[in-house]
Amino acid sequence: MTTQDLIAQIRKKKSFLCIGLDPDLEKIPTYLLSEDDPIFSFNKAIIDATHQFAVAYKPNTAFYEACGRKGWKALSRTIDYLNSNYPEIFTIADAKRGDIGNTSSMYAKAFLHEMGFDSITVAPYMGKDSVEPFLQFRDKHAILLALTSNEGAFDFQTLETGGTQLYKKVLEVSRTWENAERLMYVVGATKAEFLAEIRKIIPESFLLVPGVGAQGGSLEEVCKYGMTKDIGLLVNSSRGIIYASETSNFAEIAAAKAEVLQREMAVQIANI
Amino acid sequence: MTTQDLIAQIRKKKSFLCIGLDPDLEKIPTYLLSEDDPIFSFNKAIIDATHQFAVAYKPNTAFYEACGRKGWKALSRTIDYLNSNYPEIFTIADAKRGDIGNTSSMYAKAFLHEMGFDSITVAPYMGKDSVEPFLQFRDKHAILLALTSNEGAFDFQTLETGGTQLYKKVLEVSRTWENAERLMYVVGATKAEFLAEIRKIIPESFLLVPGVGAQGGSLEEVCKYGMTKDIGLLVNSSRGIIYASETSNFAEIAAAKAEVLQREMAVQIANI
Repeated sequence: MTTQDLIAQIRKKKSFLCIGLDPDLEKIPTYLLSEDDPIFSFNKAIIDATHQFAVAYKPNTAFYEACGRKGWKALSRTIDYLNSNYPEIFTIADAKRGDIGNTSSMYAKAFLHEMGFDSITVAPYMGKDSVEPFLQFRDKHAILLALTSNEGAFDFQTLETGGTQLYKKVLEVSRTWENAERLMYVVGATKAEFLAEIRKIIPESFLLVPGVGAQGGSLEEVCKYGMTKDIGLLVNSSRGIIYASETSNFAEIAAAKAEVLQREMAVQIANI
Repeated sequence: MTTQDLIAQIRKKKSFLCIGLDPDLEKIPTYLLSEDDPIFSFNKAIIDATHQFAVAYKPNTAFYEACGRKGWKALSRTIDYLNSNYPEIFTIADAKRGDIGNTSSMYAKAFLHEMGFDSITVAPYMGKDSVEPFLQFRDKHAILLALTSNEGAFDFQTLETGGTQLYKKVLEVSRTWENAERLMYVVGATKAEFLAEIRKIIPESFLLVPGVGAQGGSLEEVCKYGMTKDIGLLVNSSRGIIYASETSNFAEIAAAKAEVLQREMAVQIANI
């Protein structure tokens, strides 16, 4: 998907909501467990109920890998379902991959080509040749970890180096890589005040922002410091939406939660 | 597997060779492609032929994920085969994972518990709470990326920070984490001279050393700067062994290549 298509969808739906599909067999409604593929059934119900309020879905691959082959099958079925039924939706494989060049190429092929995701999250530690293979696909995107939403983000990402901080260095250096216009960045909502600094380095890039909701970030703050004239944000919510209820009407409740966020987002978009 | 068991195996086999199982359908002998599970057949042949010369096998998960569900099945079968037939072998899931705490827990469960790998490679960028979940399993290990063997390693890993360099900071900080004694580290052989510095910070930890062979690193240099009284090294070779021949006797040729490395290693061990 092109960035322009993503922006058009955001404007149409008045939403920049990304829903994290992190299905945990211990948290999904128990009646689904008797189904042949409970994870896919859960995802399908969530997607069907929430798609009008969301512009992106982000399966975190860990939750699928934890279920072995069945999980991998559920992930394939989920991306196929999204691509077949809601082709306007932007899809993100939240995989945080990154390896030497030929290995990154394998991951890129797996997620962007074979499975057909629009994008994949990528870790920066191994540098240029570990990320560029993810940028070789037209209309596909790599979403590079810059400043994450967890406590451990302060262990290394904010270390001072050469008059700046590591996460800013990651932003600066990554802009010089081949096909850098296909890069987006992960910036945690729990550090919204950092967004003003980040926008000085990457004024227009899309940011994937986790940490609103369960992790305590504020949507208003994120928009204040991070929004661009073309929105430039995908704000993710996972647990706050998909596990809002464990009853048989979990999908309806998830939709209601997603709608609340969408309406807050519509206000923010109107304020640009 | 305990570190003591690993050391005992190294001493018995006079080898600290790790063989990377990176099966690429475009490189394995073509006659295997007609088999039901060509990747597993390839791995099984390599393992059966080389196990007396190697102490560890390291499947890189990218190569399996690139084949979708079939690849995932081949990976499961490979680790099951190793654990059933060669329980003395140390197994490494070369997955380079790392995410927020609850997600890292899912990955740790998938690779160390469900699949039964002895260890997994982990990326440090997200810090303490992204790595500690991999250290919760008794007799299991997380192998943290410190200084990798690729060109991009110099983009961020060697940045100066607080009078030291990022990769050294990663080593220092990681030693303070819970169950840090279960940590091992990835240090590329293409930067052998860095090993002397690294040994000042982590004098005894095991190092997984990629980059000997195809990537140009020297075994002798690695041993000179990195070996400890308990060896402390696992030196990996992937392409140089498993793709040494594309003919029907590929496994024999792989074994011959592995034996050459094992003999060089025996000399290095004798020199301690």
